[in-house]
Amino acid sequence: MISHPFRFDLLARQARARAGTFHTPHGDIETPIFAPVGTQATVKAVTPTQLAEIGASLVLANTYHLYLRPGADLIASLGGLHKFMAWDRPILTDSGGYQVFSLAKIRKIDDEGVTFKSAIDGSSHRFTPVSSIQIQQKLGADIIMTFDECTDPLDRKGVEKAMHRTHAWAEECVRVKSRSDQALFGIVQGGAYPDLREQSTQFISSLPLPGFAIGGLSVGESKSQMLAILELVDSILPENKPRYLMGVGSPEDLLNGISRGVDIFDCVLPTRLARHQAAFTPAGRINLVNAVYFDDPKPIDETCGCYTCQNFSLAYLRHLILAKEILAAILVSIHNLFFLLDLTRKSRQTIFTGTFSDFAGSFLEKYKVRHAQ
Amino acid sequence: MISHPFRFDLLARQARARAGTFHTPHGDIETPIFAPVGTQATVKAVTPTQLAEIGASLVLANTYHLYLRPGADLIASLGGLHKFMAWDRPILTDSGGYQVFSLAKIRKIDDEGVTFKSAIDGSSHRFTPVSSIQIQQKLGADIIMTFDECTDPLDRKGVEKAMHRTHAWAEECVRVKSRSDQALFGIVQGGAYPDLREQSTQFISSLPLPGFAIGGLSVGESKSQMLAILELVDSILPENKPRYLMGVGSPEDLLNGISRGVDIFDCVLPTRLARHQAAFTPAGRINLVNAVYFDDPKPIDETCGCYTCQNFSLAYLRHLILAKEILAAILVSIHNLFFLLDLTRKSRQTIFTGTFSDFAGSFLEKYKVRHAQ
Repeated sequence: MISHPFRFDLLARQARARAGTFHTPHGDIETPIFAPVGTQATVKAVTPTQLAEIGASLVLANTYHLYLRPGADLIASLGGLHKFMAWDRPILTDSGGYQVFSLAKIRKIDDEGVTFKSAIDGSSHRFTPVSSIQIQQKLGADIIMTFDECTDPLDRKGVEKAMHRTHAWAEECVRVKSRSDQALFGIVQGGAYPDLREQSTQFISSLPLPGFAIGGLSVGESKSQMLAILELVDSILPENKPRYLMGVGSPEDLLNGISRGVDIFDCVLPTRLARHQAAFTPAGRINLVNAVYFDDPKPIDETCGCYTCQNFSLAYLRHLILAKEILAAILVSIHNLFFLLDLTRKSRQTIFTGTFSDFAGSFLEKYKVRHAQ
Repeated sequence: MISHPFRFDLLARQARARAGTFHTPHGDIETPIFAPVGTQATVKAVTPTQLAEIGASLVLANTYHLYLRPGADLIASLGGLHKFMAWDRPILTDSGGYQVFSLAKIRKIDDEGVTFKSAIDGSSHRFTPVSSIQIQQKLGADIIMTFDECTDPLDRKGVEKAMHRTHAWAEECVRVKSRSDQALFGIVQGGAYPDLREQSTQFISSLPLPGFAIGGLSVGESKSQMLAILELVDSILPENKPRYLMGVGSPEDLLNGISRGVDIFDCVLPTRLARHQAAFTPAGRINLVNAVYFDDPKPIDETCGCYTCQNFSLAYLRHLILAKEILAAILVSIHNLFFLLDLTRKSRQTIFTGTFSDFAGSFLEKYKVRHAQ
């Protein structure tokens, strides 16, 4: 069941950091890469053309949301997700697992699946490993994910039970997945517990799959726990397949992840921050409403090559935000996405030249980490 | 006081319809033209790059709004409006007259000006012909407007008084206007009364100005009154200067205005409709939320060359609207603006080839006019 069009070429390494190329039917993904999130078949506030100009290759969409609205059958009847959202580069859909456990009102979880209530109209729905794959096959993304159970990472009993279920569900997903133009990735779980993570990594990586994801991180455990688990998982996963760290995407997490062997990241952070007036800079996040920017003619980041920084001042952005103009969300989203994609681009370049650890160290020294909003 | 860089070349006519070129320091405006409105120094939901791709040349910004926030001095200190909003093509600012009379809480009107209360913070402000020109000179648009008093067009006593004041204020504006890289346009008033309109057109067109506007229409009078007044004003205004019909911009009004000698239009309609899920089509306006579009793979208009129609289905747009995604406002704004600019582009072409009246007649026959939302 391995989908052979999905070759991963590992092209360079520096220590544990990797540069590679993952080939998909909609083009190559040059790793490490950050994937913008298009939850409802749109990366919020930007057009596909702007996304391409920013340099995005892989975009993520959410199975849970699209299943509920507008529906997978509709998207399939319109030619699939690529055509629907006019994105002709690679797309990844998650399995719906994370969203159903974090967003939906759950009515019943058992070994076969999850019954939940729609947040849109209160109707009842059921996700199983089989239905998750069927939905993802209708959506037609290049990379699809096994259905997993997500729990509190610090509740050992719950984590253990969910992990075993996740393993059984992964096998089920491998069995039913049938489209050869989609790559199915398995998801490592195991919460904050090294022994469970080791067990899960060994099980999941034994499945005949072209890529693996690390799930259930950055959801409650400490940063040092997260990094220790990344190191552990990295030491077990096969070298010749891509590794995707799910839902993680602050600048510091990207660099810390890349230096621990991660190839692919996704996160709503850059676009969500943009709609809350916060922008990434090399010195850390800034709040664009701050009165100091009232008459500032400089861009968000003078070293940035994005459309926003090439054309607009901090004073103008602050004006747009105070005037509640949609263009504020557009321009800051473009900048924040560019910032993260530029970070993964530079990481890749410096892995090739053997200077990634200097680059990452120098970036992290200047970048002041703030706690999440 | 005529600003000589602002030459108007009248290039072709068909009956009363005119095709021309108005030269400005930021490039040529090929008329007839529709000017998108960027009230707060942004055309809502589109970037300057998208606006240029749509084919916009002239963009309007509002003196009243920009004076209150972020302030004309700030914009001047940042290099003027073109640099502030990153629009290097022509800009027109209105005088603040219309907004102060329609939006602000007025405290006092006298022969010297208007005292009003800011809608943002309740503070007290005064606009006079002199201050309006001073503010517009700080903003730095290519075309600026004389300060006028706007009243109910069907109250003859009020219209007459406001007209005389508007004439005196126009003379004052001509006296104080000093920047040679800005063209000052006078505004014809006179409400729905032909004799007052005639008087006003004769007075305003006697001023040494490079262009003239027709104000106070489409604000209460009937359509037939509006068209009769346009015909009257057209017969008096000088041939060799551009005529700008303020605040008018439905497809039918554009064609009816062009066939009565109008060269320039502006209106918030296309972007406002877009944010209320309505799109222009050759058959009339459509409501994009309509359930019939649930699975429609066609674009808004199969004959349209805009980015939205080239890439996205009605089903996708309806999904974005129901999902409350910002991209809906972006894509529909792009389409609606393109639709009007395309209409003025085709009007110009057909004036050159002598087929404008056929083009307009054929368009209006198919286009079903609905009453404003």
